Amino acid sequence: MNVLIVYAHPEPRSFNGAMKDLAVDVLTGAGHKVQVSDLYAMKFQPAGGPDDFTDRAFPDQFGYQAEQAAGHFAPELKAEMDKLAWCDLLILQFPLWWFSLPGILKGWIDRVFAFGFAYDRSRSYESGMFRGKRAMLAFTTGAPASMYAAGGRHGSIDELLLHVNRGMLYFLGMEVLPPFIAYGTPRLSAEDKAAYLAAYSERLLNLESTEPIYPAGSETTTF
Amino acid sequence: MNVLIVYAHPEPRSFNGAMKDLAVDVLTGAGHKVQVSDLYAMKFQPAGGPDDFTDRAFPDQFGYQAEQAAGHFAPELKAEMDKLAWCDLLILQFPLWWFSLPGILKGWIDRVFAFGFAYDRSRSYESGMFRGKRAMLAFTTGAPASMYAAGGRHGSIDELLLHVNRGMLYFLGMEVLPPFIAYGTPRLSAEDKAAYLAAYSERLLNLESTEPIYPAGSETTTF
Repeated sequence: MNVLIVYAHPEPRSFNGAMKDLAVDVLTGAGHKVQVSDLYAMKFQPAGGPDDFTDRAFPDQFGYQAEQAAGHFAPELKAEMDKLAWCDLLILQFPLWWFSLPGILKGWIDRVFAFGFAYDRSRSYESGMFRGKRAMLAFTTGAPASMYAAGGRHGSIDELLLHVNRGMLYFLGMEVLPPFIAYGTPRLSAEDKAAYLAAYSERLLNLESTEPIYPAGSETTTF
Repeated sequence: MNVLIVYAHPEPRSFNGAMKDLAVDVLTGAGHKVQVSDLYAMKFQPAGGPDDFTDRAFPDQFGYQAEQAAGHFAPELKAEMDKLAWCDLLILQFPLWWFSLPGILKGWIDRVFAFGFAYDRSRSYESGMFRGKRAMLAFTTGAPASMYAAGGRHGSIDELLLHVNRGMLYFLGMEVLPPFIAYGTPRLSAEDKAAYLAAYSERLLNLESTEPIYPAGSETTTF
């Protein structure tokens, strides 16, 4: 299996960094091929716009989808698209900031999930262009799990993640696996951290038998 | 009333640009003071991290909240914080990209809604630090309104926006007004565009009587 890990944390010694390193080791050890896009290390530019393109098909007024359809992508985007096309499994590894992706990772989505490359007018969701691939979020939170339970202070994490799991990943037709979440990482003991890493290793070794939350080809109108 | 419009579109002649220009004119004409943060024009840097700070309180390992609490913010962030502290109403003006904020605007949230400045451990939601302020999303979509209805292809827009309206804006204690949404802007006729701008002008002139979706001080556990 070819795995692309898109990793977005500014501190290599963070728990996110540890999860990314573990995933590389475990997946490589299991015989898979792994590539990592380390967005902070790459100084990935997150603002989608005219800089995405080497040449403008419509130079008078910038229209994002129209330029994406023309396909004159800058080399740094083309490189990310090649990795995404190559992978069988996409893992997004990040700290949950404001109940969503950090800006740098949202910018990666905006720029790499391009019209004509990742979806078009007739191909999305159950007929998505990336059917056959799988995707999974792996992230940390500042708050403990109890605050993300139904009735908890922040509400259900699944509802909060709808825009990512369904709106970004399943939109492309990818089968979406349940997120792996390490809650409350700022206040974890060394034992808690070790337990999370062991559980993540276990998850990574059992992806085949993990039930997706958005199976490939599922209808979206039931949500 | 002091109004801050945070505007995130790379093309000044876009419909988002027209909405922003209209809001400046209408609000100024009604006697309000308006400031605009034009993120693309400012080349706002969206990747939150060590560059947020002029000096590091914990130089060995970067921890975002710990550094934010220490408060050595870079001048460009301090300037945005001053505008946010100054305003009575915050308007976020943007194209809906992947059912969320464009990366550049998410980065503005990540960096400006800082721990210690905008919230802390005991002050959020109904006891948020920005009680007394109001906030409103103003955005465009590519898809028509029918696709965002309950049972529509993308599902309910309110559910998709939970992470922004509740998770970012109401989290700070701000009273959140219903979003103003211009649907399907790529395929609008000149008449449709004029009608949306007239409706937006009407909304801007009637903010006082607009019922909030998250009233100040409301409990979050009912969601």
